[in-house]
Amino acid sequence: MSDFTTTKIVRFGHVDPAGIAYFPRIYEFLHEAFEELWERHIGTRYDRLILERRLGFPLVHSQVDFEGPLHFGDRVLVRVTCFKLGHASLGLRYCFEVEGQRRVHARMITACTDMDRLKSVPMPAEFHEAFERIQETESA
Amino acid sequence: MSDFTTTKIVRFGHVDPAGIAYFPRIYEFLHEAFEELWERHIGTRYDRLILERRLGFPLVHSQVDFEGPLHFGDRVLVRVTCFKLGHASLGLRYCFEVEGQRRVHARMITACTDMDRLKSVPMPAEFHEAFERIQETESA
Amino acid sequence: MSDFTTTKIVRFGHVDPAGIAYFPRIYEFLHEAFEELWERHIGTRYDRLILERRLGFPLVHSQVDFEGPLHFGDRVLVRVTCFKLGHASLGLRYCFEVEGQRRVHARMITACTDMDRLKSVPMPAEFHEAFERIQETESA
Amino acid sequence: MSDFTTTKIVRFGHVDPAGIAYFPRIYEFLHEAFEELWERHIGTRYDRLILERRLGFPLVHSQVDFEGPLHFGDRVLVRVTCFKLGHASLGLRYCFEVEGQRRVHARMITACTDMDRLKSVPMPAEFHEAFERIQETESA
Repeated sequence: MSDFTTTKIVRFGHVDPAGIAYFPRIYEFLHEAFEELWERHIGTRYDRLILERRLGFPLVHSQVDFEGPLHFGDRVLVRVTCFKLGHASLGLRYCFEVEGQRRVHARMITACTDMDRLKSVPMPAEFHEAFERIQETESA
Repeated sequence: MSDFTTTKIVRFGHVDPAGIAYFPRIYEFLHEAFEELWERHIGTRYDRLILERRLGFPLVHSQVDFEGPLHFGDRVLVRVTCFKLGHASLGLRYCFEVEGQRRVHARMITACTDMDRLKSVPMPAEFHEAFERIQETESA
Repeated sequence: MSDFTTTKIVRFGHVDPAGIAYFPRIYEFLHEAFEELWERHIGTRYDRLILERRLGFPLVHSQVDFEGPLHFGDRVLVRVTCFKLGHASLGLRYCFEVEGQRRVHARMITACTDMDRLKSVPMPAEFHEAFERIQETESA
Repeated sequence: MSDFTTTKIVRFGHVDPAGIAYFPRIYEFLHEAFEELWERHIGTRYDRLILERRLGFPLVHSQVDFEGPLHFGDRVLVRVTCFKLGHASLGLRYCFEVEGQRRVHARMITACTDMDRLKSVPMPAEFHEAFERIQETESA
């Protein structure tokens, strides 16, 4: 198994008066990492997917553990793997690490969706294959 | 058991190109409903709690089901109940309803935290009692 | 002349590590005040205007003076008046006050726009009249 | 004169139901470009400036022309130059271009500020010199 990795920087506007990343901003990081995954791993820009192919992956379920704070200025390594891959259903795991220590562990389940009818549809084979390449092994 | 209710309006800036609320914005609604709960149900403003008493409730775990879309202009009824109440630990359930139909179901676990040392501390008795008043019954 | 007023509360998520409202959040307040103006003063919900009549008021020019900080927990009185009213062009002034003291002074010029063609169009007479009712007098 | 340039991508969450970047998001781009300028041009990370040296540059005045829309997926070239450089006062001009065409023209005036006392203070010489290197010439 391999994973997809990207880096996010905790900016001034992400941080709350307590000095740590405000949690709704962490969900923005998750979506931005997802968009980078499309562009760099799948090879299709997410804007083109939505605007031209009229496919999207709205969120159905999220489960997130906040294991440690993200501070202003932190460089966050985001690792993405696939823990669930169905016909329409896609489960991605995101681990946020700072200096080798896990801070956030998120599991996000989305559904491949026809954006005109807002109904779930089977994922095109080319995308299914791309997600297989970051799929977790049984024993993971 | 009683619950705490408030209303959120889905504004222009909350909605994405697919015409539905962008999910990180839904987590902002959750935090704003939490702040309103403090002011109107607990009787302590959350800004005073943090700035003067130096107590806060950072998020430890979130689990959210997105059961239906929130559209631009929707008036969302938010119901808050308490499903977990420990010494420092607080689990709140948020149900978002539009026209009587549930759209979002969130369970958010926070920890009563000393904001200077960023360590969890027992919740003051007055707050514990206020959360008991919206606590779910066993059979719920 | 009269004005339109509404109140915004500075929430946890609006405030930056310096303890004051992060300026992009202030522009969100401006848009939310604009949407409330539509609903409560004009009598048309902004979501209906966009989704059903396909008219909107995108921003053309903004000029904002930050005269004092907005702090976490501040209750901000927002006063809106109209300083420019053309066929398609609409200039609104927003004054943010905390405890009687002005903190933000914004002038926002928008253009009445056909949202399908993204071209400016004359403002319907009923809206023009509603903006006249909050128009500033010559000597203001 | 030289300028500082960086690139921003218009993401899903930046775009409104009209299909173009929601204007408060554009102000977030401005602040992020400012933070990148610190790191890459000035050579001091903005988080270190605020957290360790207790200096910041809060916004005093903004003036922005929205000359054309930013669409979902646009790659935006941001050019930053300095149009005003006083003892404490710093005026930066940001031009956003998509495919060689200007879309946003912003002038942002900030004040070098002691973040503990929230009072303006003279800018350290090393920063003044760095801003001189992107200063506009008289005839610009």
